[in-house]
Amino acid sequence: MTYNTQISQLKNYFSDIKKIDFIKNLLKWDQQVLMPDSDSSNRSRAELIAFMDKIKHEKLISEKTGKLIESADKKSDLNLIDNAILREAKRVYNKAVKVPTELLEELAKAVTIGYKIWDKARKKSDFSIFKPILKKIINLKKEYADKINVGSTRYDSLLDDYEPGATSAWIDSLFRILKPKIVKIVDNIVSADDKPEPSILKQYYSPEKQWDFSLEIIRKLNFDFNIGRQDKSVHPFTMAISSSDVRITTRILENYLPACLFGTIHECGHALYDMGFMEEIHSTNLAEVTSLGIHESQSRLWETIIGRSSEFWDFFYPILQTYFPNQLKNYPKSDFYRALNTVERSLIRVEADEVTYSLHIILRYEIEKMIFEDKVEIDELPHIWNEKMKELLDIIPPDDATGILQDVHWSGGSFGYFPTYVLGNLYAAQIYSYVKNEIPSLLQEISQGNFAHLLEYLRENIHKYGAIYYSQELIKRINGELLRPQYFIDYLKNKFYPLYHI
Amino acid sequence: MTYNTQISQLKNYFSDIKKIDFIKNLLKWDQQVLMPDSDSSNRSRAELIAFMDKIKHEKLISEKTGKLIESADKKSDLNLIDNAILREAKRVYNKAVKVPTELLEELAKAVTIGYKIWDKARKKSDFSIFKPILKKIINLKKEYADKINVGSTRYDSLLDDYEPGATSAWIDSLFRILKPKIVKIVDNIVSADDKPEPSILKQYYSPEKQWDFSLEIIRKLNFDFNIGRQDKSVHPFTMAISSSDVRITTRILENYLPACLFGTIHECGHALYDMGFMEEIHSTNLAEVTSLGIHESQSRLWETIIGRSSEFWDFFYPILQTYFPNQLKNYPKSDFYRALNTVERSLIRVEADEVTYSLHIILRYEIEKMIFEDKVEIDELPHIWNEKMKELLDIIPPDDATGILQDVHWSGGSFGYFPTYVLGNLYAAQIYSYVKNEIPSLLQEISQGNFAHLLEYLRENIHKYGAIYYSQELIKRINGELLRPQYFIDYLKNKFYPLYHI
Repeated sequence: MTYNTQISQLKNYFSDIKKIDFIKNLLKWDQQVLMPDSDSSNRSRAELIAFMDKIKHEKLISEKTGKLIESADKKSDLNLIDNAILREAKRVYNKAVKVPTELLEELAKAVTIGYKIWDKARKKSDFSIFKPILKKIINLKKEYADKINVGSTRYDSLLDDYEPGATSAWIDSLFRILKPKIVKIVDNIVSADDKPEPSILKQYYSPEKQWDFSLEIIRKLNFDFNIGRQDKSVHPFTMAISSSDVRITTRILENYLPACLFGTIHECGHALYDMGFMEEIHSTNLAEVTSLGIHESQSRLWETIIGRSSEFWDFFYPILQTYFPNQLKNYPKSDFYRALNTVERSLIRVEADEVTYSLHIILRYEIEKMIFEDKVEIDELPHIWNEKMKELLDIIPPDDATGILQDVHWSGGSFGYFPTYVLGNLYAAQIYSYVKNEIPSLLQEISQGNFAHLLEYLRENIHKYGAIYYSQELIKRINGELLRPQYFIDYLKNKFYPLYHI
Repeated sequence: MTYNTQISQLKNYFSDIKKIDFIKNLLKWDQQVLMPDSDSSNRSRAELIAFMDKIKHEKLISEKTGKLIESADKKSDLNLIDNAILREAKRVYNKAVKVPTELLEELAKAVTIGYKIWDKARKKSDFSIFKPILKKIINLKKEYADKINVGSTRYDSLLDDYEPGATSAWIDSLFRILKPKIVKIVDNIVSADDKPEPSILKQYYSPEKQWDFSLEIIRKLNFDFNIGRQDKSVHPFTMAISSSDVRITTRILENYLPACLFGTIHECGHALYDMGFMEEIHSTNLAEVTSLGIHESQSRLWETIIGRSSEFWDFFYPILQTYFPNQLKNYPKSDFYRALNTVERSLIRVEADEVTYSLHIILRYEIEKMIFEDKVEIDELPHIWNEKMKELLDIIPPDDATGILQDVHWSGGSFGYFPTYVLGNLYAAQIYSYVKNEIPSLLQEISQGNFAHLLEYLRENIHKYGAIYYSQELIKRINGELLRPQYFIDYLKNKFYPLYHI
């Protein structure tokens, strides 16, 4: 076989597998956005999704996959894209063949039940309800990690599902720098005298107008409605049904303006990445974010660094005032900007500000590592959670609901996922620092509502590559540097110290 | 293997194939209702649909399918449902294995191009543009019919895709009775002196209110929003994404009230059928309308027999008046009822009334038969079309657009589809006659907006069986009678002669 035949067979085969992912995404999008919400509708939808999972798994672990990979693997002169296609094919194939189908089925069953039990336990604020199924899920995940065994530790194997190429040793090295510095910054901020007043954000804002404003924003941010749409759902998310059909959702709280506002910008940031892959990889297995960390860097860059910046509101605040004259006509932009950037030690991760957010994640990461290094019993988890909250944020959750039960992730078996949130913030700050150097007029452009250059930079340096490069290589290619937490630290200080008059 | 193992393996296997259909339906529904409408989005969606088609075809023609059928086929003591599952499995398998994959691919390609060229030809009203691709599609369909070869004529093979069990000899026998009688009825009606005045329907009616009214109607008709929804699309349709997720669409013309009104009721009639299968068959290959004729009987029964009846408007007209007081407050119900039932010789099938409609279909059926019996050249078709229009409806289309190019069906290779529209009307009239006998208070119930008994009757006698019985058996089971056109003839006379004071 010629080079072209070998690699194009592999390419087509994995393009079919990619199609399965896209179709699954539509099944899920539809379920969360507009499907009739009866038990029977949900049951049939679960069956359809499980069927696509089965088709994918069968295809992935088939003999044919192995042969196609083997044959392509003999070539040494692959070009950049083909090489990455082969690398990704090997990575997922090697994992898939190592995991017994029964284990996957048991896991799928456990997390389905797990979600329901977690939901109930959280409502009753009682960890003991969740404990047995959590223990089961953890044990299955340990077995899963031991089977795939792709890193030097069990946790590394879990990480590979979300952040290919990352290791816990590397994350340790980042968090070791980050943790004391953030704790210090938070200390400084919360002891500042001149605090923002966030009550303006908690008034009534008409949902219809919030929706219209959110659309106006993302149109300005160059979200392409020819290949995307926005809808509403209980939890905001981004879903690619192809590289030419990327959908985001938002949610609207009528008494809390930031929910829709920053939910929309966050998902728009994800979507701009998904919409920006170069055409050559559109229907390949590289039409994919390279890691959750990089994906999150794009959402956070737009949501926090841009969306909560003073320049952003130079442009958008007058517009927002026309949407909500009763609430905002006489309210100064400078106070609004400060209100958006209130920093507080709080209990709930998803409500945390930019500064304290990382501490919530570090807590979870440390606990996850203890779990998978067999250094903790499930029984001890609530206690450890609260201890760490005290250590990192100086508050102790009054109950399980606002403590260890607050996040859905573990009920779904998503261990190794949390640290990617911090990686996202770190990547975002570093990339943003590069952009500012590259585009000296950036702040001025933003204050004029012009985001084209920024997007172009991200397209050229990040988006277009999809999953061609692993995240660490992707960042290194820009300026020769690896990921450095100092960028994020500097960003926080430069933004928040002046804001708090420190 | 035991009885249970054999049949349940077959059942599960075909349940997976059914899942593929459901998923394809979602892909199509989404494309027509809300997908971003760019070329690239449409291209990727076409790829996803084609992929599901491929998966289905591979599964269907695989050796495993043959073995499962063979093994189940050895049993002689199958119960009703299992027997029907096996019958359907055999029917689709036997056809699928006979058709070369290349032929299917060629057909798929031809109809994709065919649609675009037809669209262009119709816009330019020039049959010669459409002719070459139509010829190609017809030739491929001839090859297809000859390969599957399931009836005694080529046309019978085509019919089997839409109306299993039907033959052209049988349809001939029905149409032979129908044609002269309908021609006669139309003659009588159009020569009547006292004609309805339909202009009231062609005023401006606010789209929002039309939409709300359409929802109010189908709620009353017991459309179950827990397992269904209504949306808008360019062409109204019904799509089942599972037996617990059945969706209809409607379209709204602001200057023509009947479009949304009867589009909605029509699709609701389809949906009530799709929503009414007995649970035992929900995820089997029997969770399906048994034929397009029976499907159409349900939509037409609700749309025309019920929806255009005087009793229906006894209940709904006062409500409609509250939606549109400016247009209707002083307009009597009796005139509105007559306006809805205007009969006219007209050019366009989809705009035709209940009476002339069958003649449009008979014309198409006769031409299709000529085509597949090799009794006509493509070149002659426009001429033959116009001749038949003159014969049946006494009008001659002024151009191709309002003549032979008006319907999309042939561009999609759907030959054998048209006659099911008339079968639908015939079945509807016959079933309705049974219902009226069974429920003496029916007309009174309808005039009180109570449709529960009617639906219950349809559920018990039609809907719940899904594809368990072929259509002819289904109707025979109700009263021992086969399909008889006289019911429809009588229905038309009993309704329209008084309405036209004949």
